[in-house]
Amino acid sequence: MATAAYAGFDPTSALKPHTIDRRDVGPRDVAIDITHCGVCHSDIHWTRSEWFPSEYPLVPGHEIVGRVTAVGNAVTRHKVGDLVGVGCLVDSCESCWCCGDGLEQFCLEGPTGTYGMPDKVSGGHTHGGYSTAIVVKDRFVCTIPDNLDPAGAAPLLCAGITTYSPLRRFGAGPGTRVGVIGLGGLGHMATKLAAAMGAEVVVFSHSPSKVDDARRFGASDVVVGNDEAGFSRHRRGVDLILNTVGTQIPLEPYFEVLKPNSTMVQVGMPPGKISFAMIPMVFSASAVAGSAIGGLPETQEMLDFCGEHNITSNVEVIPMQEINTAWERMLKSDVRYRFSIEMETLR
Amino acid sequence: MATAAYAGFDPTSALKPHTIDRRDVGPRDVAIDITHCGVCHSDIHWTRSEWFPSEYPLVPGHEIVGRVTAVGNAVTRHKVGDLVGVGCLVDSCESCWCCGDGLEQFCLEGPTGTYGMPDKVSGGHTHGGYSTAIVVKDRFVCTIPDNLDPAGAAPLLCAGITTYSPLRRFGAGPGTRVGVIGLGGLGHMATKLAAAMGAEVVVFSHSPSKVDDARRFGASDVVVGNDEAGFSRHRRGVDLILNTVGTQIPLEPYFEVLKPNSTMVQVGMPPGKISFAMIPMVFSASAVAGSAIGGLPETQEMLDFCGEHNITSNVEVIPMQEINTAWERMLKSDVRYRFSIEMETLR
Repeated sequence: MATAAYAGFDPTSALKPHTIDRRDVGPRDVAIDITHCGVCHSDIHWTRSEWFPSEYPLVPGHEIVGRVTAVGNAVTRHKVGDLVGVGCLVDSCESCWCCGDGLEQFCLEGPTGTYGMPDKVSGGHTHGGYSTAIVVKDRFVCTIPDNLDPAGAAPLLCAGITTYSPLRRFGAGPGTRVGVIGLGGLGHMATKLAAAMGAEVVVFSHSPSKVDDARRFGASDVVVGNDEAGFSRHRRGVDLILNTVGTQIPLEPYFEVLKPNSTMVQVGMPPGKISFAMIPMVFSASAVAGSAIGGLPETQEMLDFCGEHNITSNVEVIPMQEINTAWERMLKSDVRYRFSIEMETLR
Repeated sequence: MATAAYAGFDPTSALKPHTIDRRDVGPRDVAIDITHCGVCHSDIHWTRSEWFPSEYPLVPGHEIVGRVTAVGNAVTRHKVGDLVGVGCLVDSCESCWCCGDGLEQFCLEGPTGTYGMPDKVSGGHTHGGYSTAIVVKDRFVCTIPDNLDPAGAAPLLCAGITTYSPLRRFGAGPGTRVGVIGLGGLGHMATKLAAAMGAEVVVFSHSPSKVDDARRFGASDVVVGNDEAGFSRHRRGVDLILNTVGTQIPLEPYFEVLKPNSTMVQVGMPPGKISFAMIPMVFSASAVAGSAIGGLPETQEMLDFCGEHNITSNVEVIPMQEINTAWERMLKSDVRYRFSIEMETLR
């Protein structure tokens, strides 16, 4: 049993420094000293019980990068000293057809999330990456390509795979045009990834100040706000849209931008219901799709792709002590483009 | 200029017998004596201005079957005496990329619907199939296979293509399981077509009295009402769902039935907005898709498929004089499974 410092939150979102016991390293376990953890909008939703009632104290964080410090005797994929990552999942049944197909996020018995979920091993709740160390089953530990900066690689474990998976599923690539709504943590990853896949990228953003960044990330066009000329320039011309906005926005104008029989993917997940008019959806034969991170094989594929294309998230590296300020800034979209916590500051 | 009897409707939905002038047969036109016209739920929505304000008097009907009586001198695909069909479209620009790809329903200049739409040729409004005759541009006239009963073939032009197109688009076929919600005009076609494509079909219906019919149409299982055992039997086991219900129903339970990364298609089109919870959609990575009839090449493909598999709609053939009663019965789901008007009764 190892003791790790961690940052726990209560329902008022106040940071409370604590220590926590991590489990002993079992035969298939990988022990990791966390160097960085990305800050995801989900951390706020979850800590504030915005999606469902959460268990407290809660240790958020599912964009984890660190160095392996120990491995169980059945572990072959990872060894001490490796740079590794852990995303949103730390366990699943490993025997249903979804797990068999590498779709662990849809495990029929319910996968175990990295934080705030019943832990099948300890009997308590899982605790995430706002912490100095973690012990995770080997299947759920990914290899981080050595050329990637650890601070910028951390957000790949959630923001990266969340955008990579639907881009692959819906065929982004050469000859296709991909729309990205919102240029935040998810949106800037979607832009970089789609451009690296060879797609033409159009960013829809409400921030004129982000136009230059959007182009730097790979966008060939940026439509600012409700600019009619911009919408009309792309009318029925976009093969796939990723809506990365974390609040409810009117979807109907984007049905007109999509080519017939094409899809808008909701990768942001605002609380509550989604609502839109039937007629524009039907008359354009548009689809509105959900997407849920990615399975472990696809997460590793995404990391390898990022290694080949040298893609990381643009991050502001912060000490843990600034987390409450960072959250408040995030809610005001005041971050370019993801916070990454330097875990050394918690030691 | 030929004169045709027709059945016009005013905003109170009262049937008013009239005559109407059909245009002279131009070089690319096909003149048709209508033998049957199917009765579609859209006829009621449109006549009652439930989707948008309609033009009156309105002559509904876009499930038209008849015999060719004359063709223009540039027409090669059809000849006098042929059994032909006309669906929801009678014109489009024929020059945009959508028309070029055989997706005339998405014509960038806006396709011309068979009724209630501005008519580019006459300058007035188009008038549909509740009429003894119609003149239509050759591109929008399909061939009805000779082995099909004309009364039962009429609904293929809308209910048939509306269900065929998404079944093809989303890969219904051997080794797939297709769910059909609702067993009405659209639902019974979806069931027959999906079964003929080789898919396993599960019907979700609120009518215990339709179970035997569902199986006769090709369903291998029927889930009645909210039967929990039925839903749990197919949990994450269905590759594609067609929701054919014309009113708003809760979609969330069906996200649990879909396999991850799969699609529910809205082929019914209730007025107003559609609304559903984000979390179950995202956690199952489900998509909710619209679908809009089909283009002309696909409509002909569907008719040929129906000819090969001897598929028609189950119809109650009615005289035009019973149309108001038929509409009232349709709104109570009291029809097995589509009304088809015998146009001889209007002559």
